[in-house]
Amino acid sequence: MKKGLFITFEGPDGSGKSTQISRLKKRLESLHISTILTREPGGTLIGEKIREIILDVEHTEMDHLTEALLYAAARSQHVSQVIQPAIDRGEAVICDRFMDSSIAYQGFGRGLGDQVRIINEYAVRGLVPDLTFLLLLDPALGKKRIHRDYDRLEKEEDEFHQMVYQGYMQLAAAFPERVVAIDAAKSILEIEEEINRHFDPLLEEWSNQ
Amino acid sequence: MKKGLFITFEGPDGSGKSTQISRLKKRLESLHISTILTREPGGTLIGEKIREIILDVEHTEMDHLTEALLYAAARSQHVSQVIQPAIDRGEAVICDRFMDSSIAYQGFGRGLGDQVRIINEYAVRGLVPDLTFLLLLDPALGKKRIHRDYDRLEKEEDEFHQMVYQGYMQLAAAFPERVVAIDAAKSILEIEEEINRHFDPLLEEWSNQ
Repeated sequence: MKKGLFITFEGPDGSGKSTQISRLKKRLESLHISTILTREPGGTLIGEKIREIILDVEHTEMDHLTEALLYAAARSQHVSQVIQPAIDRGEAVICDRFMDSSIAYQGFGRGLGDQVRIINEYAVRGLVPDLTFLLLLDPALGKKRIHRDYDRLEKEEDEFHQMVYQGYMQLAAAFPERVVAIDAAKSILEIEEEINRHFDPLLEEWSNQ
Repeated sequence: MKKGLFITFEGPDGSGKSTQISRLKKRLESLHISTILTREPGGTLIGEKIREIILDVEHTEMDHLTEALLYAAARSQHVSQVIQPAIDRGEAVICDRFMDSSIAYQGFGRGLGDQVRIINEYAVRGLVPDLTFLLLLDPALGKKRIHRDYDRLEKEEDEFHQMVYQGYMQLAAAFPERVVAIDAAKSILEIEEEINRHFDPLLEEWSNQ
């Protein structure tokens, strides 16, 4: 049986991932390709419960490695319960964030380094996206949208997001075949065209399998 | 400043860990040694929330690696927030289950092997117990001693608990200096005496630091 497709979207919040994800999904459905849309952290009942722990604003005491391990736990459940079975059924899976997020946010942003990659390689069990669309936005650009004085945490967060940005850039450089870096400052239509330009050859190759 | 003591108790549920833990705690307190009693999974607010996810009997779909990663996440929080700070303050920490449980239950019982050790070495950041009391009980016997509803792990097949038992035996063989294996079928007093016989030299060495 034909193996499915696995497409991930990466980039900071506010970079327009959701818009592009729903456009790509519509396009796949118009081609009568059975498509699953999912997200991380979450995507399963257990994963959504883990997501609640990770994102709860009350959990200010959360250790960085705990955070990384919780993301990996949610991902392990997501891959084994949802993503891999769908791919095995020959379906297309579009996922909002995947392993690259952990490397960028925990590995680079939190400074945990290579242990994040190793932990996540266990979690994904060899699964690698066929294509990853990375919507990149200069963190300084986002910062300009805050029209007041920054507090101590926002200053710290800015540095954190700069590290995440550097992490994403390094991933794009390390995996040029898989990761398509797109300037998220472009218009929605321009981004969509760029996505399709990279997606079409994969789709053709896949259809002719 | 004098480094604290870190004592862990291992063994299946129903092996009498709790009884021995509270006796050891009383003994330390009678010697005016500040002692913290804690448990895994759990021991922190975040860890207890992770514990709920792990042990929930509804979560029959939980992937084995997800389970291992959740235990490691709870442990990472526990070590960084509670155990290591207490040891750094010179206190004694008695912990009901620690890294050996993951190796026995997930590494051996679930058959995940060495990845469990690697993930947990990240989680504990070099922290190793000074002494581990392993209360070993034939799995068939242990189950009979639990007089309440089983949690998700306790509900597992006998074959699983046999593998856990084998795992514990291998840990005792691999770390004879640290891990004291005790026959949990002995009387409470006999076990207590055996614990004290191994604990006293450590305590003396520590007191003379």
